[in-house]
Amino acid sequence: MCLLGIDLGGTTIKAGIVNEVGELLVKAQVPTGAADGAAAVLERIGALADELCRRLGITRKGLKGIGIGVPGSVEGEQGLVRLAPNLFWRDFPLVEELSVRLDLPVAVDNDAHAAALGEMWLGAGRGFQSLLMITIGTGIGSALIINGCVWRGFFGYGAEMGHVKMLPDGPPCHCGGRGCLETQASATAMVRRFREYLDDGRPSRLQDHPGLDAREILAAAAGGDELCLQVVDEAAVFLGRALANAVLLAGPEVVILGGGVVQAGEVFLAPIRRHLKEALGGWETRALPVVGAALGNDAGIIGAARLALQLM
Amino acid sequence: MCLLGIDLGGTTIKAGIVNEVGELLVKAQVPTGAADGAAAVLERIGALADELCRRLGITRKGLKGIGIGVPGSVEGEQGLVRLAPNLFWRDFPLVEELSVRLDLPVAVDNDAHAAALGEMWLGAGRGFQSLLMITIGTGIGSALIINGCVWRGFFGYGAEMGHVKMLPDGPPCHCGGRGCLETQASATAMVRRFREYLDDGRPSRLQDHPGLDAREILAAAAGGDELCLQVVDEAAVFLGRALANAVLLAGPEVVILGGGVVQAGEVFLAPIRRHLKEALGGWETRALPVVGAALGNDAGIIGAARLALQLM
Repeated sequence: MCLLGIDLGGTTIKAGIVNEVGELLVKAQVPTGAADGAAAVLERIGALADELCRRLGITRKGLKGIGIGVPGSVEGEQGLVRLAPNLFWRDFPLVEELSVRLDLPVAVDNDAHAAALGEMWLGAGRGFQSLLMITIGTGIGSALIINGCVWRGFFGYGAEMGHVKMLPDGPPCHCGGRGCLETQASATAMVRRFREYLDDGRPSRLQDHPGLDAREILAAAAGGDELCLQVVDEAAVFLGRALANAVLLAGPEVVILGGGVVQAGEVFLAPIRRHLKEALGGWETRALPVVGAALGNDAGIIGAARLALQLM
Repeated sequence: MCLLGIDLGGTTIKAGIVNEVGELLVKAQVPTGAADGAAAVLERIGALADELCRRLGITRKGLKGIGIGVPGSVEGEQGLVRLAPNLFWRDFPLVEELSVRLDLPVAVDNDAHAAALGEMWLGAGRGFQSLLMITIGTGIGSALIINGCVWRGFFGYGAEMGHVKMLPDGPPCHCGGRGCLETQASATAMVRRFREYLDDGRPSRLQDHPGLDAREILAAAAGGDELCLQVVDEAAVFLGRALANAVLLAGPEVVILGGGVVQAGEVFLAPIRRHLKEALGGWETRALPVVGAALGNDAGIIGAARLALQLM
């Protein structure tokens, strides 16, 4: 069985054809070009699907379904993208548009939900029935899976750990709130805090680096740069505390950390684990696994294919 | 069908016989006398059961099962009370002990879980499939119900909202952590904060009151006492923020507030709702119901009977 998985990002569309056991048979990517409008994006998705089918030697009719992960809030059952700021979409009926255009069944969900489904299927969440995954990038995405299903909750958008309030009078978040976890522990927040310390005259080996990103801060931290270590630890404090509170409420069997910065490995994972453990204290009556995501860059494609499999 | 529901508290054992639709047919209570040891407590439960049966004109064999709510952490499936500090119990096999003694099927759970099941059955949670209930008293208990079942989570003890960390360097909690919600928003915390303000010389109409409790603070707040209004609002800020974070993660269909202090009504519920709404901000895409528990003092008995019904 061939399923098309699409990881629709603000800058890149990644897509691949995956079989029923999750093997990624072929993959490709193109720029999203979101500024050209939704019709152009759908056009590119169609061309990408055809290109992948061609490379695999099947026709489009050889696909059983399409799954697509979107960076935004999604009403999965209606197939509606409520709001995807990076795509400039609001109330966009993605399932309808794409299924008519490609004449195939389409499933859509938030990209963090898709990634978590992928991890549960074939990655770090394999064998678990409940998990909490947070994806740390420009923002912080999250997904809570309970009894094998993404928990969508009353509002329909699922877990939004990036917007739990960590500092009541903290900096404003683009969501309109203040002191959200995202403002303290995203990749963006790490870079912002690092720059603030530099402006305060703190030394770092990265100080003359113009186009700095969080991966470089993590790499320098791994190399012993004191300021970078502090910046990483400060993000980890907030992540650990937010995760502890989430665990005290929802008690998942495993916590999975995803996103590009997590690929830095132990330099980031170890302090998050330490602060989580400290915040849980005696409530951790047995060791809670806290692990990095295992599917790497293909997580979005594989997770999206898993969404399509749920249609079968 | 007759079910015996027991609300085993640190000071009082409340029990009642409830039918299959939740009608409370007869009830009674006796002091727990926990200091006399577990055997004496079980003895009193047995005598109470017999007394209730006698009053209803049935024999003990006329009961189909017993449910019991316990103030502590419980492993429901094993029927084991892990820790109930107010009863001086640790790793006490309550289900085994009580089912042998009374020769009836017994179900046990944490008292906050039992109350939430009761509210879902016949109270403020009726008709909902998921709910979050917090019970504000000496401490803060909580229960998360998902798809109609108490969510017990990885550690088995379910939701522990009373111990989410609200202030990283806050006052120590009896759980060993710091700045837990319970230290800021329980009835005990309200009394403590009120006394601190009095010591600072703040005036209140309750200032010469020796054996003050949180209900009196709430009553004075309802009567316009400024200091009491402030104390209530400060507890509500923490409750609102903790609930907002819980809602962003677990998105229940309804939030139920229980416990003696909630019986004060709007003077407490309104500021909690206001601060919850403020913390949720734009994430509240439709109005989330936040209501007081409806079963009052009988919640524990009825919820415990619901536990017994789950055995059938």
